[in-house]
Amino acid sequence: MDSGHLGGDGRDRGMSEDSFNILLATDIHLGFAERDPIRGNDSFITFKEILDIGLREEVDFILLGGDLFHENKPSRQCLQKCMDILRQYVFGPKPIEFEFLSDPEEIFKTAAVKTVNYEDENLNIGMPIFSIHGNHDDPAGLGQFCSLDLLSTAALVNYFGKIESLKEIHVRPLLFRKGEISLALFGLSAIKDDRLHRLFSESKVTFMRPQEDKESWFNLLVLHQNRVAHGPKNHIPESFLPKFMNLVFWGHEHECLVKEEYNQLQDFYVSQPGSSVATSLVPGEMKQKAVGILRLHKNKVFEIEEVPLKTVRPLIIGNLSVTGLSEDTSEEEISDLIAEEINNLIEMSKNKVTGHPDQPTLPLVRLNIEYELESQMISTTLFGRRFQDLVANPSDILKFKKVLPGKQSKE
Amino acid sequence: MDSGHLGGDGRDRGMSEDSFNILLATDIHLGFAERDPIRGNDSFITFKEILDIGLREEVDFILLGGDLFHENKPSRQCLQKCMDILRQYVFGPKPIEFEFLSDPEEIFKTAAVKTVNYEDENLNIGMPIFSIHGNHDDPAGLGQFCSLDLLSTAALVNYFGKIESLKEIHVRPLLFRKGEISLALFGLSAIKDDRLHRLFSESKVTFMRPQEDKESWFNLLVLHQNRVAHGPKNHIPESFLPKFMNLVFWGHEHECLVKEEYNQLQDFYVSQPGSSVATSLVPGEMKQKAVGILRLHKNKVFEIEEVPLKTVRPLIIGNLSVTGLSEDTSEEEISDLIAEEINNLIEMSKNKVTGHPDQPTLPLVRLNIEYELESQMISTTLFGRRFQDLVANPSDILKFKKVLPGKQSKE
Ligand SMILES: [Mn+2]
Ligand SMILES: [Mn+2]
Ligand SMILES: [Mn+2]
Ligand SMILES: [Mn+2]
Repeated sequence: MDSGHLGGDGRDRGMSEDSFNILLATDIHLGFAERDPIRGNDSFITFKEILDIGLREEVDFILLGGDLFHENKPSRQCLQKCMDILRQYVFGPKPIEFEFLSDPEEIFKTAAVKTVNYEDENLNIGMPIFSIHGNHDDPAGLGQFCSLDLLSTAALVNYFGKIESLKEIHVRPLLFRKGEISLALFGLSAIKDDRLHRLFSESKVTFMRPQEDKESWFNLLVLHQNRVAHGPKNHIPESFLPKFMNLVFWGHEHECLVKEEYNQLQDFYVSQPGSSVATSLVPGEMKQKAVGILRLHKNKVFEIEEVPLKTVRPLIIGNLSVTGLSEDTSEEEISDLIAEEINNLIEMSKNKVTGHPDQPTLPLVRLNIEYELESQMISTTLFGRRFQDLVANPSDILKFKKVLPGKQSKE
Repeated sequence: MDSGHLGGDGRDRGMSEDSFNILLATDIHLGFAERDPIRGNDSFITFKEILDIGLREEVDFILLGGDLFHENKPSRQCLQKCMDILRQYVFGPKPIEFEFLSDPEEIFKTAAVKTVNYEDENLNIGMPIFSIHGNHDDPAGLGQFCSLDLLSTAALVNYFGKIESLKEIHVRPLLFRKGEISLALFGLSAIKDDRLHRLFSESKVTFMRPQEDKESWFNLLVLHQNRVAHGPKNHIPESFLPKFMNLVFWGHEHECLVKEEYNQLQDFYVSQPGSSVATSLVPGEMKQKAVGILRLHKNKVFEIEEVPLKTVRPLIIGNLSVTGLSEDTSEEEISDLIAEEINNLIEMSKNKVTGHPDQPTLPLVRLNIEYELESQMISTTLFGRRFQDLVANPSDILKFKKVLPGKQSKE
């Protein structure tokens, strides 16, 4: 591989004029906690922010890495809100400055409308979206459709990378050209990790690299699989992926590691934007969330600008050990002790208030508590009521974890 | 009322050049019997035919009277097929030759996008669709959305007539003008018959008739309620509807009575297009199905052309009495007797084959059998197997009805 990589913040506007600019975002999980009166709208708010960033940065297109929806069968309200937002953002007068060189009939073989939406002469698309599906929004049911099929048919999203056979996978790239920049975009929508792992092991995954001017293409792969090992076969090691890739856009992992990391062995970079909404209260979700703007220059030079998301609800996680408390400590004393800690966390969460007018500021707070004896526990429900109006998740602030005497974990 | 009514078939082309042409169709029931391997696609086929008629007749718009969907929560496949078809038909270069004079923010108050779709500058709509909802596809669930809301947000349908309060209803018309023709379209989406009956009785349904040039408007009401009485209060008598209406487009009733009927007492006409797919095997569904082309001329003169649908699966219903069979008639003899009758019906169904290339020709056959004694019945399942490949509904060809001795009904 011979792609170059630019350091710095990539904000040299002189340079980006000639660049192919793609917003990278993933795991937006629309509809997460939809029925929660406090958090129900969070995923939609940040989706809007992401699209706002796309408009502001005048990207050529938006590339999503799967899990646009949290539920395989989103509620009608969720679909409605999603389409409402998309309709506000994807249409517009901005001219499309890049060409689509692949055969759309081939790439969009399984779609109802076998074209990229911006080439439909009845539609004025200003900011196209391309997306693969994730494990949360994969095809299912009668006819094996997924929510992205609906969005594709409604001309709101260009859905690609649908897997046609589970025995052998041929990934055909979407070929784009903008000025002197050629981009081959390979999409591999989510399938079960162990299955994909086996297919890779058996050399049954083929990437159909463009042969003409073979070396001129910037090869970008987007996939949605476990990157972190959870057992020997239910993740995809980076070493499985072809070395001719220049950049791998990794979806599914919720931790934000959007700045490209170089894999020396494979000689490619990996960018993992992470989710835009915390779907679980774990440290990986607590990090600053961001999307990436991939700016691709000629000669396969690129940089990724990390754009922090400012509408994400503050999340603070703390740890506390109560193993030292003697058996005659009253529930009230323990409760007060914990409450003090929660108050500290709430205080800390204020550093995460960005001033963005749409950010929900009532924080998500989680305290992981290690205990040894039943007497060291308190009722989480009763406790939560003390923080009813102070946190977004009063019912699950506390998580008790029993440790064996002397085995207290270090974090 | 002083509207005129033209006899004849309305095919005088010289006349229709100056006319406002609206296709009237209703109760399309997309997704009916969706999981039936034989009949699963019937509703979609005829929906396409209806839209084909719209294109061929170059109507100004299509007006649907509710029950576009059979299920309140259509399957993803059903939504997908529906949007696929709509996308093929509603977009196009044909100019819109009429104006929308109402305040769209008022008319589409509850919609995500508060405009008629053909006025969105990012879309090229050639044949707009307007629809109210029926009792099958009414708003429900989180946020009270219905499937038509999704189609509206996707810019595929203009959904109107959503009822905002169940205590008092104000129906605001959509005001259109084409040349010298002024049309006020009142939409009343489906609500429970007894509730609407009560609201009418209590004078709590108001039709906001345009006051300017009051007499110049052709007033068209579309509603989706029981027209036929099923008890004293669960239908809407025509006498409840305002006399200033010129035409009432009645949805919900599946029998095709599309040719306008004059109600002398009310001095308005009623057109009931009926369903485009048989959702039950009853005589009302056996009649020739059709849509109407309403051609509206100046001075409130109009005619409705009945356009027969040619893709509807043949349906034949017969009646047989076996009450005369003695107790020692064998099951085989009875079965042969009934089979002969079924063969006649199948033969008769061939008259309903139209030659339209998309028409499914395997017929729906129903024989209603009157019997007195258990010995006169046969197993419908076993019997159905004899007609496995000869009818579309082998499992429910026969319907036995017990009659008391001597009480045999006349039909
Ligand atoms: Mn995810
Ligand atoms: Mn995932
Ligand atoms: Mn109906
Ligand atoms: Mn109905």
